[in-house]
Amino acid sequence: MKIAQLAPLWESIPPVLSGRTEQTISYLTEELVRQGHEVTLFASGDSVTSARLVATYPHSMRLAPEISNCDAPLISLMERAFATSQTFDLIHSHLEFRPFPLARRSNTPMLSTLHTRLDPPELLPVFRKFSDMSLVSLSDAQRDPLAWANWHRTIQPGLPIDLFSPHVDPGRYFAFLGRIVPDTGLDQAIALALHTGMPLRIGATVDPAHVEYYQTVIEPLLDNSLIELVGELTDSEKDDVLGHAFALLAPYHKTDPFCFEVIESLACGTPVIAYGSGCIPEVLEQGVTGVICQTFEELLAAPDLVPLLSRRDCRQTFESRHTITRMAREYLEVYEQVLGRPPVDAMQTLAGTPLAYSEQH
Amino acid sequence: MKIAQLAPLWESIPPVLSGRTEQTISYLTEELVRQGHEVTLFASGDSVTSARLVATYPHSMRLAPEISNCDAPLISLMERAFATSQTFDLIHSHLEFRPFPLARRSNTPMLSTLHTRLDPPELLPVFRKFSDMSLVSLSDAQRDPLAWANWHRTIQPGLPIDLFSPHVDPGRYFAFLGRIVPDTGLDQAIALALHTGMPLRIGATVDPAHVEYYQTVIEPLLDNSLIELVGELTDSEKDDVLGHAFALLAPYHKTDPFCFEVIESLACGTPVIAYGSGCIPEVLEQGVTGVICQTFEELLAAPDLVPLLSRRDCRQTFESRHTITRMAREYLEVYEQVLGRPPVDAMQTLAGTPLAYSEQH
Repeated sequence: MKIAQLAPLWESIPPVLSGRTEQTISYLTEELVRQGHEVTLFASGDSVTSARLVATYPHSMRLAPEISNCDAPLISLMERAFATSQTFDLIHSHLEFRPFPLARRSNTPMLSTLHTRLDPPELLPVFRKFSDMSLVSLSDAQRDPLAWANWHRTIQPGLPIDLFSPHVDPGRYFAFLGRIVPDTGLDQAIALALHTGMPLRIGATVDPAHVEYYQTVIEPLLDNSLIELVGELTDSEKDDVLGHAFALLAPYHKTDPFCFEVIESLACGTPVIAYGSGCIPEVLEQGVTGVICQTFEELLAAPDLVPLLSRRDCRQTFESRHTITRMAREYLEVYEQVLGRPPVDAMQTLAGTPLAYSEQH
Repeated sequence: MKIAQLAPLWESIPPVLSGRTEQTISYLTEELVRQGHEVTLFASGDSVTSARLVATYPHSMRLAPEISNCDAPLISLMERAFATSQTFDLIHSHLEFRPFPLARRSNTPMLSTLHTRLDPPELLPVFRKFSDMSLVSLSDAQRDPLAWANWHRTIQPGLPIDLFSPHVDPGRYFAFLGRIVPDTGLDQAIALALHTGMPLRIGATVDPAHVEYYQTVIEPLLDNSLIELVGELTDSEKDDVLGHAFALLAPYHKTDPFCFEVIESLACGTPVIAYGSGCIPEVLEQGVTGVICQTFEELLAAPDLVPLLSRRDCRQTFESRHTITRMAREYLEVYEQVLGRPPVDAMQTLAGTPLAYSEQH
């Protein structure tokens, strides 16, 4: 299949620093190429890929301080893709709503994976105006604010099967991964560690937008020998910190569209203690790969249940459900689904559009 | 003529606070309607216009703190305009490069007025990719970074003829208007005032991006009874401050695309002392409406030449060259020019595009 992947330009593909979206695009692209598909990756010029790379700017925007307006390179990139759209069977966009107007005027079908939260209120009108666009979500929970949109499938991001190694023996400390923001509940993770008397290793960075939360809520809690802040972790450091943990603590109040930390933990064989919010119930299996709690009291009691879980089952669940092989297979199924529809004459659709949309806003 | 005006959404049309672009769009729109044209203004819902208003969001973005991503409402607005493009003779965009991809796929001609500086490096690739787009500049000087683009004309922004009133008697102080940034040379204006012994009234605000410049360079110079910082001025306050001034000091090192302060001064009958940079030589006439200097020494000597200038000539120049009547007439001439070209089959152009652009980036 001839597939165009449209990537954001803020980070390269794969990202130099952390970037879940860019990492997922890279994994998917490499796997599709490995399976023999003809993939063209529209991305920043410093991307590294086995697909054909098309770039309109040599650097990722993060490394281009001379650029004040990221819209300009993005528009160049999208124009480049759609001006050659007839050379692709399908365009797979990771650019949110931005290419919707071009897709409506193109005969090549486009599928969009939405990688971000969908609750910002400004998204509602633009998604309503383009309610015909084919969408993929990272979790069912992510869809809530736009539940009526043209969702084709939820495809959870996957990881390479050998990125992390299974560790069968449980460690004697808890791990916490992710951003230090009110939504991730690090304060409750710390409370649980102190309550249990088991150390907590925190692989996390302070979110610049939440420095005050860090200083007032979290920092005072760190002054205890049980609690260790180890900073942002590389993949091999994660393998060590997660792999030797007793359990990952993920007491998130709200989750991002997908909880990458949870599948990283399962890949290491480490079960997860979490609240049943957001995407957690879709990823974690109660009593098999984790303990899903509804209240803080349940959270405090959860460590007693961890020894009942099998670390082999955690790894096994990862291998069967969370690899890039499974992710790529699901994407190919959706690609076929999008292509298998009766061909739409895009110009015909366009000609019929004006009245409907001018009435509807 | 049936004309669509596409306005930015950050401010309403006209702006509640200062906004030169939004003010110019408002003046042009009202004048075109007054002349009997059918104008549709695509803008924020709190805009006030005698044209037909089409809005996709009730507030200007500045007044919508719930919105984190201005791109979404802009894309809705552009889609709304281009989905109904066949109902317009011409689309006049004030949205920079953003609607270029849609214009390329539309049969309705689009003219774009560029209201901002064109030196940011990210603009070069996108304007090169869309080098066929019809453009209007606010000054010839503005074009420099993209001199090769498809410029139709320079049309200087105009002001309503009765916005400011002529003041025939020269005052006994200098005026300075505009932003306090290194480019506007307020330090040299202050030096000139102190050198001459004539007071200086500064109608300006501190640019948030240049607070350090203000604190280190400008603030220490304000501690002198000759120098008075009066803050941002309304139009009627400008009429007073400019109208009773001896001269406007505009010792800009670099200018914005257009020097609105200079024509406001001329409208009040007040001559201008300026450096010959940017758009100044296109607006100011040496020995008639102002003294154009090349060096700081010339600047210090310039006040001696001001009494040789006629305040009536300043006002007369404003009335003949800088009103919205003249601006609207010039726009209508360019509209006709754009429409008078042999009709282009947009789909044909599009079909021929891919190879050319994929080679060129």
